Amino acid sequence: MMRDIKGDMRHQGEARWDTLARNTAARQQRGAPYANGKLVDKDALLPLLRAVIESGDRVCVEGNNQKHADFLSQELAKLDPTVVHDLHIVQSNIALSSQLDVFERGIASRLDFCYSGEQGVRLARLIKAGRVSIGGIHTYLELYGRYFMDLTPRVTLIAAQSADRHGNLYTGPNTEDTPASAEATAFKNGILIAQVNEIVDEVPRIDVPAGWVSYVVQAPKPHYIEPIFTRDPAQISETQILMAMMVIKGLYMPYEVNRLNHGIGFDTAAIELILPTYAESLGLRGKICSYMTVNPCPTLIPAIESGFVRGIHCAGSELGMEDYLRARPDVFFDGPDGSMRSNRVFCQIAGHYADLFIGSTLQIDTQGNSSTATLNRIAGFGGAPNFGSESRARRHASHAWLKAGREAAEATGATMPRGRKLVVQMVETFRDKMQPTFTERLDAWQLQQELSLELPPVMVYGDDVTHLVTEEGIAHLHRCANPAEREQAVRGVAGFTPVGLRRDREKVAELRMRGIVQLPEDLGIDVSMATRDLLAARSMKDLVRWSDGLYAPPSRFRNW
Amino acid sequence: MMRDIKGDMRHQGEARWDTLARNTAARQQRGAPYANGKLVDKDALLPLLRAVIESGDRVCVEGNNQKHADFLSQELAKLDPTVVHDLHIVQSNIALSSQLDVFERGIASRLDFCYSGEQGVRLARLIKAGRVSIGGIHTYLELYGRYFMDLTPRVTLIAAQSADRHGNLYTGPNTEDTPASAEATAFKNGILIAQVNEIVDEVPRIDVPAGWVSYVVQAPKPHYIEPIFTRDPAQISETQILMAMMVIKGLYMPYEVNRLNHGIGFDTAAIELILPTYAESLGLRGKICSYMTVNPCPTLIPAIESGFVRGIHCAGSELGMEDYLRARPDVFFDGPDGSMRSNRVFCQIAGHYADLFIGSTLQIDTQGNSSTATLNRIAGFGGAPNFGSESRARRHASHAWLKAGREAAEATGATMPRGRKLVVQMVETFRDKMQPTFTERLDAWQLQQELSLELPPVMVYGDDVTHLVTEEGIAHLHRCANPAEREQAVRGVAGFTPVGLRRDREKVAELRMRGIVQLPEDLGIDVSMATRDLLAARSMKDLVRWSDGLYAPPSRFRNW
Repeated sequence: MMRDIKGDMRHQGEARWDTLARNTAARQQRGAPYANGKLVDKDALLPLLRAVIESGDRVCVEGNNQKHADFLSQELAKLDPTVVHDLHIVQSNIALSSQLDVFERGIASRLDFCYSGEQGVRLARLIKAGRVSIGGIHTYLELYGRYFMDLTPRVTLIAAQSADRHGNLYTGPNTEDTPASAEATAFKNGILIAQVNEIVDEVPRIDVPAGWVSYVVQAPKPHYIEPIFTRDPAQISETQILMAMMVIKGLYMPYEVNRLNHGIGFDTAAIELILPTYAESLGLRGKICSYMTVNPCPTLIPAIESGFVRGIHCAGSELGMEDYLRARPDVFFDGPDGSMRSNRVFCQIAGHYADLFIGSTLQIDTQGNSSTATLNRIAGFGGAPNFGSESRARRHASHAWLKAGREAAEATGATMPRGRKLVVQMVETFRDKMQPTFTERLDAWQLQQELSLELPPVMVYGDDVTHLVTEEGIAHLHRCANPAEREQAVRGVAGFTPVGLRRDREKVAELRMRGIVQLPEDLGIDVSMATRDLLAARSMKDLVRWSDGLYAPPSRFRNW
Repeated sequence: MMRDIKGDMRHQGEARWDTLARNTAARQQRGAPYANGKLVDKDALLPLLRAVIESGDRVCVEGNNQKHADFLSQELAKLDPTVVHDLHIVQSNIALSSQLDVFERGIASRLDFCYSGEQGVRLARLIKAGRVSIGGIHTYLELYGRYFMDLTPRVTLIAAQSADRHGNLYTGPNTEDTPASAEATAFKNGILIAQVNEIVDEVPRIDVPAGWVSYVVQAPKPHYIEPIFTRDPAQISETQILMAMMVIKGLYMPYEVNRLNHGIGFDTAAIELILPTYAESLGLRGKICSYMTVNPCPTLIPAIESGFVRGIHCAGSELGMEDYLRARPDVFFDGPDGSMRSNRVFCQIAGHYADLFIGSTLQIDTQGNSSTATLNRIAGFGGAPNFGSESRARRHASHAWLKAGREAAEATGATMPRGRKLVVQMVETFRDKMQPTFTERLDAWQLQQELSLELPPVMVYGDDVTHLVTEEGIAHLHRCANPAEREQAVRGVAGFTPVGLRRDREKVAELRMRGIVQLPEDLGIDVSMATRDLLAARSMKDLVRWSDGLYAPPSRFRNW
């Protein structure tokens, strides 16, 4: 009787359960004339792509924060849209024009992504023109998660440093997303194509085993890579140094923040550069900032060399830091071959469960919601929302987490005790060209309308933020009892911006009495100390010296 | 001048940055007499461990949800505590007595873990006796995250199916935690020791490359593995079937839940077994439950065969399912070799960002906080808190997520629109022996006192739960305006338990009018239909038939 039930219930008479595997075999048969084993000559790549890609395929393009499969992407954009069309691109970062050419040319029509940065204006234009339909804008981990659920790639194009003739891949320090997209593809009978900078007899270490790889092509030039985490200390202002002092004395010290993630920018670089001076003078070495999940920012070098930062796991690498990373295996995650392996998945996980995230943003509203979205530009989110959101699945305790949780519960009267992640936004009240950072209403609302997004593109939600730091002071938002109080705490540190000028002075004074708003003097900080003398390194050259010459900045950062 | 600054700031005159690498080299030199290359004879393992493990080491023992490095764990427990002591064990699951013997015998003294299950009573006793100091109790991802931050293992003991003579490892379908602990260890100059069931000339696929592996030992018998996800359909009650009907018609249908995670237990097995019957009759095939992140529970077989569930990514595998998984590559993540690769990291990530989690629990309080902690037993958390918590870093939209977010915002008057994950707790009002599931106060509070924990061990927090389903009805907790209303919604579905009897009848009637409490009749569900006839499989034998004989249940589940 069960056989009958099953017969009725089957979705087709003779179900096939290996359609992907059979289809892949057919593609590989078509591709065979263009490959020698797994090796494909650069001139044979385009015909190979024609042979193995089908219309409607979901194609994952490596598109990392730094490293890009630029050659594969360029060749993909050369396909004939009358033959191959309606590709669905899944890609974490869009940074190169070829990555949007596939839409402009009608080869691809749908996009799921994380971050578009410099290409954000063109992407917004393509959306409005109907050339791109956006599936979703993600944070990194959620997009990787969907690779294993409903967005599994059919074909994936990745970049690695080198390959051997069997197809074993060595990524070098910029491993980044590669393990995630490679695994999702190789284990669902997808086709994994790697461009490499060189073919070698033996790779220094295996980052992706040959069994997972379909094809390898040596690109005509090394893959594109962007040094996005390098900040020249010469550009750090005294305002940023003052804010950094407040962060160290007002937050890192009382919360004993020892496991954290720093966002990208001059604000957090200032913190890094006064650890060996200011934090040292407060006796904080070994007590704060011991473990970080962050890319190997050159501005971390003095804090590492002076014994402040003891361990760093990296999402990616940073150009010029290779030799330094190799020489500091106690600090970084270096392989048996001596070079670093980054991994954005593990770095994002570790950072999410750390005690603190601190980052900057472009706009903040009166509830602490912040966004980097600006009009006519669709930028996406990247990793900040993951680092900068409450880790509600966290269960292990730490001093920082318990203290923040206790403070939040006292404010709201919550009955179930729970820890809380510290999420700090650090901004000057005015940006470049005297644009106020604070606003009554985020541009994100207008962008939602213009691009027909389901929600305003908020980077970090106000109810996830515990602290706001400006040059005026610190607002302890998680200690506010309700939205009205939170609003005044935000206004209370918003300086001379219109948002700040509309503060209720009496209420802000009360918040200051309660320690919810703290000015530098409340923290015992001497503002006159906030000079560039406090920076452990004041120039790129200083960073190179601190590194004993191991750090080799890209030429654009050198003026010597 | 910078050189002087640097000189002053350095933490030691001549800092060494390769202490781990040099120490590892020394250990390996001591271990060399007991190994032939990387291969270690089973009788040489104990002397090898003596040679390469030092007092105070952080040792990661694999310790998965299912697979265990049992031989390595047993041998570790044979070390001489006068020579090796104060090991710090990091281990996701504790299931075997040898895993606690290391504490009982004074070899290890500190433990960071996720879940202790059957060993929970003994662990609580060891804690009270001062033999174990607990670092933290974690969910899976947060412990893996700490492997890359402040809990990086010095020595890691893992289990794999086979190895070749170079040390390349094949894990088989139970890959589970292995990639996470192997990467953290190999890339911080740690020592990675694998026990394997067999040494072969060529592994079917490489799950961990030889370059990451220090030693391989063939264990005297295959590693321990536990089939924890198998539920015999014969034990499913009509009450569970009624609840499953409510979940499908009251939640999966209106929210169009198509990407989800099922907890472990008979309640969710009942849902799986009525997809091909009840959900089919509602026309829901292809509309709900298409993608799941879950272990390959045998009770999913009919839903797969009937075309309901189309894709599954697994955290681990399940004994007896190997051939079935191999024969369904379109559904599962099978490698080029044909066997499945599970990966708890990616499965947890995908599930966290899915639209819904549904699971069971042992105790629920009047705010919806739930716990599986019971007195005198320290069980830990595993993965449920991650699946069962708001994914605040999520940014991509879906119908389910937007609808739940809108409903929550309407209830609380939140001004910033945001999506919301559906977190469902599904329980009968009374457990075995007529113990009420609902309680005014969780046992977790008492356990916190007894074991001096920082917080009560809550599994899923009430403010993360959107829905509570009992045999009485569904409570839409996220639609409650405040804690008082939430309390009445909980009491309103708590049946004849003391918590249920203390309901405010008028308020519950109002909540029912507003659709916040729904009884079966409110959902148009005919209670008389809730019989075992609705199950697509009613026995283990039925599951085997559905699988065309591919599923081979372990003998304990066979009565034929």
